[in-house]
Amino acid sequence: MITIAEKINATIPSTRKIIEARDAAALLELAEKQAAAGADYIDVNVGTGHGSGADEVEAMAWAVSTIQEKIDTPLCIDSADAAVLEAGLTARQGKPALINSTKATEENMAQVVPLAARFKLPMVGLAMDDKGIPASAEARLTACQNIAAYCAKHGVPEEDLYFDPLVVPVSTDITQGRVTLDTIAAIKKELPKAKTVMAVSNISFGLPQRKRLNSAFLQMAVAYGLDGGILNVLDQELMGAIRAAEVLVGKDKRCRKYARFFR
Amino acid sequence: MITIAEKINATIPSTRKIIEARDAAALLELAEKQAAAGADYIDVNVGTGHGSGADEVEAMAWAVSTIQEKIDTPLCIDSADAAVLEAGLTARQGKPALINSTKATEENMAQVVPLAARFKLPMVGLAMDDKGIPASAEARLTACQNIAAYCAKHGVPEEDLYFDPLVVPVSTDITQGRVTLDTIAAIKKELPKAKTVMAVSNISFGLPQRKRLNSAFLQMAVAYGLDGGILNVLDQELMGAIRAAEVLVGKDKRCRKYARFFR
Repeated sequence: MITIAEKINATIPSTRKIIEARDAAALLELAEKQAAAGADYIDVNVGTGHGSGADEVEAMAWAVSTIQEKIDTPLCIDSADAAVLEAGLTARQGKPALINSTKATEENMAQVVPLAARFKLPMVGLAMDDKGIPASAEARLTACQNIAAYCAKHGVPEEDLYFDPLVVPVSTDITQGRVTLDTIAAIKKELPKAKTVMAVSNISFGLPQRKRLNSAFLQMAVAYGLDGGILNVLDQELMGAIRAAEVLVGKDKRCRKYARFFR
Repeated sequence: MITIAEKINATIPSTRKIIEARDAAALLELAEKQAAAGADYIDVNVGTGHGSGADEVEAMAWAVSTIQEKIDTPLCIDSADAAVLEAGLTARQGKPALINSTKATEENMAQVVPLAARFKLPMVGLAMDDKGIPASAEARLTACQNIAAYCAKHGVPEEDLYFDPLVVPVSTDITQGRVTLDTIAAIKKELPKAKTVMAVSNISFGLPQRKRLNSAFLQMAVAYGLDGGILNVLDQELMGAIRAAEVLVGKDKRCRKYARFFR
């Protein structure tokens, strides 16, 4: 499974402080730890929901430049704001990156999809539209198909797309675990060249023993075809859960990765 | 999920001693512990692979009579030998039971299916035929369909059938986890009135951290529609895994069972 390390995200208070203080040493330490844990991508999200867009553009350029001076791991440039994405992608200077993300709205696609085409980089598409996150798997698939269709017209091939089925807490709607699994299965069937990726931890919001639910849901999602996760690569329990899931669905030939992890 | 408690099985050395010694107190203690843990059925399997058929017929009648004198939990009468099944079912004297099991062979079905019809009891059908356990999900489904067809002709309705997709260690064939999950999905689709049930622990044979794999595989199977498990109901970790799985696939309304378990 592709792992996208989630810790460089300004919604985490300790990370926000690092970004606001432009603390290069602390940012690098966070990136290095996640790279050493084997992350395939390191997510970089400087959005606090507070600062201005101009602040975030400058913060993204700083964060990307700072990390890539020392670390070769590909970065996942993460923002809801296309200008911030562009700043991060420009700072990458042609190095590998994943664009995270566009929604299935005309306005968002018109801003973000051209970046994927221009930089020739893969992009995450979220299974949501103008009205938010649809309640049904069918409507989430439609959102993904709309993104794929827009991308096909604008020079981004299906094989460069990662779809996020999105995760809503089961404590607010008990059907939502099922809906996310069914969305993954539908995307794998209807958009077979695209990959799927998701952040798992929302599923357990409001319930006890959250790690237990997060691991189990990630494993179920792997069984349904999930290709990647935005997650805490420093969590050995969760990484062990991925190793177990890959053995169980036949994605770990001769069980070698599993045996090595638990040796 | 329906839980079938697995501990009264003569392949377990300590249980074999209890049965060979006709130790009624020890047998009852084992049954009582599993009933108290919330088992829906208590499995009773007196087959050691050593004793004669006549021994086993007498042992089954003794075990069933002994348990049901004190315990109301339904029993799962478990044997590969139809005469042993009949002894257990007769001893039940009309009390609820599950017949475990028939294979999809003419010989086995001709002996076991009439018991299900005569006692009007549900029965487990194994996804295997004359040649053993098929390697593919398609062939396992065919075995289940053959059992269902034979049962329909002989007075056992589909809603009384529990199909066991069977579990082969991933350490011997890495595709086998996938095959079992696909078999469950195929049975749920093609034989929608039947239920599915399986013993999970074989999946992890030969690998480290077996409990981790067993829990994860059971959770994946629940996501694919598994209705029941033959398992250690005294294992709190595994029972917690079931509670988590049921929350995640929407089978635990308002997350009440989960919250109660982990309170």
